[in-house]
Amino acid sequence: MKLGIDVESGENSFEEFIRAALKSSSTLPGISLFLIGNSLKIKKSFPVIDEYPNIYLINSNSVIGMDEAPLRAVKSKKDSSVVVGTKLLKNGTIDIFFSPGNTGATVASSILNIGRIHGIKKPAIAAFFPRQGLGETLILDIGANPDCTVENLYHNALLGKLFYKMLYKTENPRIGLLNMGKEHGKGRYNLKKSFSLLNSIEGFIGNVEGYNVFNSSVDVVVCDGFTGNSILKTAEACKDLFINTAHEIIEEKRRNSVLSNLFKFKKAAKWYKNKFTEKLIPEFYGAAPLLGVNGTVLVGHGACKEADLINAILFAKKLYELDFLKNIKQDLKKIL
Amino acid sequence: MKLGIDVESGENSFEEFIRAALKSSSTLPGISLFLIGNSLKIKKSFPVIDEYPNIYLINSNSVIGMDEAPLRAVKSKKDSSVVVGTKLLKNGTIDIFFSPGNTGATVASSILNIGRIHGIKKPAIAAFFPRQGLGETLILDIGANPDCTVENLYHNALLGKLFYKMLYKTENPRIGLLNMGKEHGKGRYNLKKSFSLLNSIEGFIGNVEGYNVFNSSVDVVVCDGFTGNSILKTAEACKDLFINTAHEIIEEKRRNSVLSNLFKFKKAAKWYKNKFTEKLIPEFYGAAPLLGVNGTVLVGHGACKEADLINAILFAKKLYELDFLKNIKQDLKKIL
Repeated sequence: MKLGIDVESGENSFEEFIRAALKSSSTLPGISLFLIGNSLKIKKSFPVIDEYPNIYLINSNSVIGMDEAPLRAVKSKKDSSVVVGTKLLKNGTIDIFFSPGNTGATVASSILNIGRIHGIKKPAIAAFFPRQGLGETLILDIGANPDCTVENLYHNALLGKLFYKMLYKTENPRIGLLNMGKEHGKGRYNLKKSFSLLNSIEGFIGNVEGYNVFNSSVDVVVCDGFTGNSILKTAEACKDLFINTAHEIIEEKRRNSVLSNLFKFKKAAKWYKNKFTEKLIPEFYGAAPLLGVNGTVLVGHGACKEADLINAILFAKKLYELDFLKNIKQDLKKIL
Repeated sequence: MKLGIDVESGENSFEEFIRAALKSSSTLPGISLFLIGNSLKIKKSFPVIDEYPNIYLINSNSVIGMDEAPLRAVKSKKDSSVVVGTKLLKNGTIDIFFSPGNTGATVASSILNIGRIHGIKKPAIAAFFPRQGLGETLILDIGANPDCTVENLYHNALLGKLFYKMLYKTENPRIGLLNMGKEHGKGRYNLKKSFSLLNSIEGFIGNVEGYNVFNSSVDVVVCDGFTGNSILKTAEACKDLFINTAHEIIEEKRRNSVLSNLFKFKKAAKWYKNKFTEKLIPEFYGAAPLLGVNGTVLVGHGACKEADLINAILFAKKLYELDFLKNIKQDLKKIL
């Protein structure tokens, strides 16, 4: 697998990404990593990089900022890491491209440079959420397309289903339409119309709500990119609130512990924290695929760190081994 | 204060509500409670109710179900608890009306029977979310109006601001527009247009995201009813996921505890749970006001239980003492 990594566009320093690349290159010798960014700067900070036979530096001269208007930036900054990355994907230099930068720019550059899969009007980003019980819940779109038409929602459902099937090797994942109530006829006008169209997909179980996402009663949740983005950010913020609140409480307890119990207490607190994190981090985290474009593009969190990128690389490897793009295109061809 | 309570429309049995009413009527002797439902059934289950001088039974003959189309149900079931309640509010028998039933029906019946405040096109439901640090964050709309126009969002901002000011006695709460990024120009077309209009409101701090809701960087979060509803339900479901996960982990720890430590362990686990709940439950919970209608209407959670109603009654009392409706109408008159 040849994976291109945009090391410049994230919120964190490029050094986080280089460290992750060096580690992964040693543990996964069969892959080639193409690091897209300021090559001189990278070499200066990591002179050892020349000794890694499976790491290549691809120079890019500019960066698209998080606050830039996506389409305008992509058109004017042709030498930016994200534009260079999608072009490398187009010409076959790399098999998969990962960027933690401005999501809108990654979407726009992907559409402009690699195009969409035949029949798909707008791509969608799909992310996994943790849940009680086995497995994870896939939500799409989480931010590629804020205003979804009925057709866009139908395509999201198809893309999500095919992706989930491939990854979890399950024949008929349960697909739900996110709405304000489970009854048909609830919510926005667009959703009422989408309900009938989605009903033609095998596995469609009707409208779902927030609690379904987390209680294992649905596998693929279909929504527009604005709602998905709001849900994702709310869930992340809730996680922080809960973890910080738990910390405060543990700290309060610690202050009241007698000295002799302190070591034992600290050990227990650490054990709880690790267990909690382990249970709540989805298996496939660190990157979310942009489904519907004619190439394998992975979108990372803006605040992506070393550990996230290491996981994103493993996820990319998994998609490569599954022959993700070829399969999803073949499956879509039969339907659309 | 004369408070009307719809005891029939919630998901839980009417008995939950009657028990809450009996308790509150004893602890808050200055209030009068009008229980709207099947009077015969209530008397049969609670013969003692006749002895309460400040509880009145108002008979209603039908109930609007959670899955009924709101407007049609309100028009056809004129003797339903929610229609009877809003009519009592209209004719001044009660000062405040509470219903835990079909939200759409409560909204429709309020608009039809008591009307809107002059200048407001669509009412909005406002709910408090817990956050790190002091205070709580108000989000509106959480479900009255799924498709908001630019003007609706502007009205939501005004209503939210006035409500927050009154309740927290703060002059300029910070108002944010929920969006996919903090930069102006992000997200849906409607939101880009709303940004400029909201900018004319003192206290407007621009776009906000999920994490702002929970980290005390904004006081009033403006969004459409579909997004707000999705956020609310996601946050509730996340809370369940976290608490259940913590339970599982504690259970695992307990199984590995030696018998002599078991009592001590159970005591500690209970302490943690109580602390956690105490820190995460907002002060004003149990009911959310329907802002923008010409009366004080409180919407309860469908799964509302005894403790929630007791808190809703305290909240109603607070609004009554603040002369909520008169004040919000006076303030709005100066702006619209």
